Amino acid sequence: MSARQADAPDVQNFDAPRPYKLARVGVRGVKKPVQVHRPGQAPHGVVATFDMFVDLPANQKGTHMSRNLEALADVLDEAIAEETRGLENMCRRLVLRLLEKHDYAEDADVEATADFFLARTNPGGKSTVENYGLIAQAFGRRGEAVTRRVGVVVTGMSACPCAMETARHKFAEKGQRPNPDIPFITHNQRNIVRLCIDVPEDEDVEAEHLVDLCEAALSAPTFELLKRGEEGDLVIQAHHTPRFVEDVVREALHLVVKRYGGLGDAVVVQCSSEAEESIHKHNAYAERRTTLGELRA
Amino acid sequence: MSARQADAPDVQNFDAPRPYKLARVGVRGVKKPVQVHRPGQAPHGVVATFDMFVDLPANQKGTHMSRNLEALADVLDEAIAEETRGLENMCRRLVLRLLEKHDYAEDADVEATADFFLARTNPGGKSTVENYGLIAQAFGRRGEAVTRRVGVVVTGMSACPCAMETARHKFAEKGQRPNPDIPFITHNQRNIVRLCIDVPEDEDVEAEHLVDLCEAALSAPTFELLKRGEEGDLVIQAHHTPRFVEDVVREALHLVVKRYGGLGDAVVVQCSSEAEESIHKHNAYAERRTTLGELRA
Amino acid sequence: MSARQADAPDVQNFDAPRPYKLARVGVRGVKKPVQVHRPGQAPHGVVATFDMFVDLPANQKGTHMSRNLEALADVLDEAIAEETRGLENMCRRLVLRLLEKHDYAEDADVEATADFFLARTNPGGKSTVENYGLIAQAFGRRGEAVTRRVGVVVTGMSACPCAMETARHKFAEKGQRPNPDIPFITHNQRNIVRLCIDVPEDEDVEAEHLVDLCEAALSAPTFELLKRGEEGDLVIQAHHTPRFVEDVVREALHLVVKRYGGLGDAVVVQCSSEAEESIHKHNAYAERRTTLGELRA
Amino acid sequence: MSARQADAPDVQNFDAPRPYKLARVGVRGVKKPVQVHRPGQAPHGVVATFDMFVDLPANQKGTHMSRNLEALADVLDEAIAEETRGLENMCRRLVLRLLEKHDYAEDADVEATADFFLARTNPGGKSTVENYGLIAQAFGRRGEAVTRRVGVVVTGMSACPCAMETARHKFAEKGQRPNPDIPFITHNQRNIVRLCIDVPEDEDVEAEHLVDLCEAALSAPTFELLKRGEEGDLVIQAHHTPRFVEDVVREALHLVVKRYGGLGDAVVVQCSSEAEESIHKHNAYAERRTTLGELRA
Repeated sequence: MSARQADAPDVQNFDAPRPYKLARVGVRGVKKPVQVHRPGQAPHGVVATFDMFVDLPANQKGTHMSRNLEALADVLDEAIAEETRGLENMCRRLVLRLLEKHDYAEDADVEATADFFLARTNPGGKSTVENYGLIAQAFGRRGEAVTRRVGVVVTGMSACPCAMETARHKFAEKGQRPNPDIPFITHNQRNIVRLCIDVPEDEDVEAEHLVDLCEAALSAPTFELLKRGEEGDLVIQAHHTPRFVEDVVREALHLVVKRYGGLGDAVVVQCSSEAEESIHKHNAYAERRTTLGELRA
Repeated sequence: MSARQADAPDVQNFDAPRPYKLARVGVRGVKKPVQVHRPGQAPHGVVATFDMFVDLPANQKGTHMSRNLEALADVLDEAIAEETRGLENMCRRLVLRLLEKHDYAEDADVEATADFFLARTNPGGKSTVENYGLIAQAFGRRGEAVTRRVGVVVTGMSACPCAMETARHKFAEKGQRPNPDIPFITHNQRNIVRLCIDVPEDEDVEAEHLVDLCEAALSAPTFELLKRGEEGDLVIQAHHTPRFVEDVVREALHLVVKRYGGLGDAVVVQCSSEAEESIHKHNAYAERRTTLGELRA
Repeated sequence: MSARQADAPDVQNFDAPRPYKLARVGVRGVKKPVQVHRPGQAPHGVVATFDMFVDLPANQKGTHMSRNLEALADVLDEAIAEETRGLENMCRRLVLRLLEKHDYAEDADVEATADFFLARTNPGGKSTVENYGLIAQAFGRRGEAVTRRVGVVVTGMSACPCAMETARHKFAEKGQRPNPDIPFITHNQRNIVRLCIDVPEDEDVEAEHLVDLCEAALSAPTFELLKRGEEGDLVIQAHHTPRFVEDVVREALHLVVKRYGGLGDAVVVQCSSEAEESIHKHNAYAERRTTLGELRA
Repeated sequence: MSARQADAPDVQNFDAPRPYKLARVGVRGVKKPVQVHRPGQAPHGVVATFDMFVDLPANQKGTHMSRNLEALADVLDEAIAEETRGLENMCRRLVLRLLEKHDYAEDADVEATADFFLARTNPGGKSTVENYGLIAQAFGRRGEAVTRRVGVVVTGMSACPCAMETARHKFAEKGQRPNPDIPFITHNQRNIVRLCIDVPEDEDVEAEHLVDLCEAALSAPTFELLKRGEEGDLVIQAHHTPRFVEDVVREALHLVVKRYGGLGDAVVVQCSSEAEESIHKHNAYAERRTTLGELRA
């Protein structure tokens, strides 16, 4: 051995024993505290979980995964310094940084998820802090623009329009006439709505607005704090607006088209609604993945 | 060293570097297919997940965990040969076998959980196969009798009695009078009931009977298969029987006392009800852990 | 109204208030006991969890979800009667039945997952029953052939080739020369491999064979029952075969190409490997989704 | 009815239809953003999940669950105003507030869990932000002092001392002599350590110190960011310190006794270690729940 001890071998740079290209190689489940800055809000901390991948050419044995963690540490430091707005912008930076650090990669793909909170007003007018899920994504190909996507996960309530009519019918068959000004009984349950939308260059999509759309698409939003009378109001509201999972997704799509009319046809929109059925042990589910262009067609 | 190479050292038998007694040492999450034999039923396969522990005296470095897996393999083989009835009896055998194989242990503690299924009749009289959770436990001290415990996890429906009265009141305030023969709207949701009970020597407690009690304690059971009219019937039934989580637990305790009146005072009974509230993002919860003696006092 | 009371309204058949087409509407998480029949094996019970979806045209308010449960009950009854082979064939039947029952639907999409078990031989030659995940899928468009897909989830062990070389290098730097016949230390961990492959018409893909491929692609398989010496053998085997997640996926793809050479170019193959890194709190991950044709190119 | 419309009935205050006392009634899974203030640290946000219970006397139908949410909102507001130190102190406040608000209750019981992060130094001297779990509890009986408990969940690495000796022995049998200055191969894996300890009146137990003890009790801590050489260092460290789950728990107990010598005999200490075995599909587990007094005996 020469005067200087050789470095440890870069095993990742070895030839791949089985030369197949890999689509996504990287790390999953990296948890980090992140400061998020939004207009009109104090910066607030969230705990984000990151998945970060690049592709790997057929001939190279491995990707250098520690570079993904370095990229994340860099971007988090910069976020503190420069007040990065929004987790989806942090994801875009990560995509660019991953492509820089992995010069053999053509694609990079990043997702961050986090719990976040909004101050909402319950049916009694009281302020309550509500929990939502935030989804931020960015992906891009070397030399092309990075696509950002932002989404939310909203827990609310859906009341079944079919069981309402059936129950009404059953009483009618027995000659029982309800007061038509009082909504009829039905089953209702927790309903999880997911709504994601591409954020075009030079545009912003606020997670808070997506939450607004999802809550408007449900039979009713839910609240952590409800005094007795407010519970009653919420129950009445839900029974005035019975909706299938199908209705929830379509209403959300309708509201997306209305609100984001200015965005381009290529913008991808994904929406799902999952009802944790109170009358079944299984869930009811509906989804659509499409573009704004198709929705407007 | 003699002609024969010595065995690999039994590291578990070494002295413990820090001589503290340990209460439970063993394995968690061992999944095995098990044939269960019940009176009046064809033997049927379930997938059981086993946790198996013994205590460890202060001076011994480690327990021999592979013996737990050997004990399990033995007991499963015997079960096939001798038609062991009930998972809790298999757990009792495991406790005895663990104490045999770990001669340094004073206590053994085994739990098995599994999905199981029962043929039930939906409100329209149709047969439907419903899914429940089974909990079987056994624990014992060397030289003493083994305690067996059997339990079930039942998913059903609870409708809130408070929101029903509040909503009714809100309409009354506006001068709206409901038809008194039609139940009033409220929120309802999935409700998970857990009920466990000791099985005294020479007695049997059938999981199916525990399921009956839990379903009777809820506002309504749930079913995988419900045609439109049956959905209506179930919704009506639940609204005729509004119950808090508190009511569900107490009704289950009441039914336990009624059904298992012949069992001794020392028999431990545990019951909980967790409502996945449709109007909140959090759950409502009630529980009691007590003895038949206390319940009868 | 005539002598006979009209039926309850079919609310699902109402016009959709927001006429957007939906891609997938149905039920998730339906658990059922299923008897699986495989050549050379006694029929054995598994607990399968079904997701079943159809699409929904823009004008129709809702899908009739109870028909999905009826379809499932029918197919399960037939399975008992006719000894349906394989869960993926049951999924194909479900796709056809869903398209029959939902005459407004163009597509149907079914997935079933289950725990399953195979008798394996540990390094000491002892028989041990090992747990795997089974994935069965079928999807099809009205009037076209149904695509079946079968997959497995295999938990094994991967040992890192990079840390092995780095640790070796660190000792070399201090002048420590290892015995070259003894493998070097590295970190190793649980590794979850998922492998799915299309099953062309008139062909069969046995889940057991996919498990064989996945276990051969890992540094070593894992076993529930290992006596001391067998543990040693397994550790030695894993250190003789250090593999990145990248290596695991590529080796599995290589073995798929070798074993399933007779299948057509259009057959879709998906493989991922996720290492629950012992030196990190996050996981390492690699995946490829492609066709046999591309793999052979 | 008098001039003034009566209030909606307080259904919770009704007589219980089945008068059994309940041990714990309340809410589970309430997520809230919390600012935590620790000496020498900037206040930082965490997302805490709260469970809050009181007991319920036999005669009363229900507890007033919304009061739990009001108590939480109050305490969170005060925390912002007065810089409450530590989540366990917030839990103590909640216990007192619950007993105030539920005048029929004798006991209150609160738990909060959260992800938290500490800046740690990896084997290469680089700073890295690491994720841990925080557990804070408080419980008390009306008129008695409230017990606080604080705990941590630490993910690290354990290397098996038994497989190391067995593998060494297997090579020795074949006449292969290792370099005694190089540690021998074994299996290693993620290991989850949980350590909780009572916090006596006028004392403080810092979660960060509990993390220190847990990481010292493992074969090695883990780090999100490790460059190649640092990976090698960590692997070497773990193989120099092979430990069973039993060893991990006992070492942690030993370190607790050393560090918290000043605390009283009645202080409860709970510790468990769970190894996600790389050679098995199941986990290995050890635990002890005891008092400082017993540990010192």
